[in-house]
Amino acid sequence: MNKPTLYTCLSPALLHLYDVRDCVVVVIDILRATSTISTALYNGAKAIIPVDSVEKCIRLGREMECITAGERDGKVAEGLQYGNSSFEYPREFIEGKTLVLTTTNGTKLLHMALAKGATEIITGSFLNLSAVCDHLLSQNKNVVLACAGWKDKVNLEDTLFAGAVAARVKEQFTVNCDATQVAETLYGVAADDLFGFMKAKDASHYHRLIGFGLERDIRHCLTPDLANVLPYYVNERLVIR
Amino acid sequence: MNKPTLYTCLSPALLHLYDVRDCVVVVIDILRATSTISTALYNGAKAIIPVDSVEKCIRLGREMECITAGERDGKVAEGLQYGNSSFEYPREFIEGKTLVLTTTNGTKLLHMALAKGATEIITGSFLNLSAVCDHLLSQNKNVVLACAGWKDKVNLEDTLFAGAVAARVKEQFTVNCDATQVAETLYGVAADDLFGFMKAKDASHYHRLIGFGLERDIRHCLTPDLANVLPYYVNERLVIR
Repeated sequence: MNKPTLYTCLSPALLHLYDVRDCVVVVIDILRATSTISTALYNGAKAIIPVDSVEKCIRLGREMECITAGERDGKVAEGLQYGNSSFEYPREFIEGKTLVLTTTNGTKLLHMALAKGATEIITGSFLNLSAVCDHLLSQNKNVVLACAGWKDKVNLEDTLFAGAVAARVKEQFTVNCDATQVAETLYGVAADDLFGFMKAKDASHYHRLIGFGLERDIRHCLTPDLANVLPYYVNERLVIR
Repeated sequence: MNKPTLYTCLSPALLHLYDVRDCVVVVIDILRATSTISTALYNGAKAIIPVDSVEKCIRLGREMECITAGERDGKVAEGLQYGNSSFEYPREFIEGKTLVLTTTNGTKLLHMALAKGATEIITGSFLNLSAVCDHLLSQNKNVVLACAGWKDKVNLEDTLFAGAVAARVKEQFTVNCDATQVAETLYGVAADDLFGFMKAKDASHYHRLIGFGLERDIRHCLTPDLANVLPYYVNERLVIR
């Protein structure tokens, strides 16, 4: 039996090169959308509605009486109530609530994948690394690891996560994809100390968030399995599978 | 004094994210356009005229009575005289001649950079690694390392070369570019045995060319400084600087 294929798309601007239909698309935005999504759902959020504009976020929040959250360029977007940090969503705050979320890169990529015909979308972060890998290993379907990057540029942390997934699951997939090899090799170098690697390489997003005093967020977002749930997209929202 | 910037663009489909004006653009297509360009010029070719279509290649070849060469999908394109292998251009054949060349990825990328306003374009390959690095170090100008990839997908060999350049020149540049860090890290892993790395990772282009019986070409194209000249683009042709 042929193994299913595994591809890594390193930037949303390359998504058109991959067939996302009939496969599992893993949306990856480590700093910080998909980390926040894992955390909020792990802490009991009922659902997260990802939207691609601040305006829509505000409107939906009003109509549905939900919490609105999101960032543009790493800061809370004007008109929204909360930001894009896991630490804003502890269980005592988020349990049972629905969050409408918009971010610079991650939620936009999710909508791009939908527009291209994706029918099965999950979100991946180090916080739910094992849940993502276990799911991919159980499905026997083709996979596209879709990195959000930063404004279409390739970034280190999303590439590292794609590499972490590839390292764990590759034996069960056909990998004819140089981007996956790049990601896995990068992860192999960095795996023992992801934070140290990001710091040593002065990753652009590391640099940006450190400038906002968010070292704790970065460390959190690079820690495996702290919020090990599987967010999947159904009926226009992310819920736990 | 501020150092100039160094960016790496991992795919032609990402070129719009980089400002290529007023900087040195290094066009990289290791397998095999920019390797063939280095070799032909090193062996005495008068000039190489890169064109972006087979039709234009045939027309110019006829008008100017030049050699026509090029490939599509790794094979000699129909209607052209020669292919895209360094071994087709020994000194006794190419000295004093002008070559009109079109390839799947490399020559297309060069024309994209021109269309985006690039004014200084050179071509890079392992065969002329030192010449490229020496030039970049001598110019004090911003640099974009532009990888041709394969039909807009990121590939291993072009990324490796960008990493090799970054490893040599980075101290004299400001590198706020995750793609450069990815490339340099990859090169660090592969540097001791580039061919072995490409083989171990079953790089897509390695796989394609091995299928055509071109292992010798791959080994040649991964060997530093075998044709150490600096091809630069002026008056619609590549000549030695």
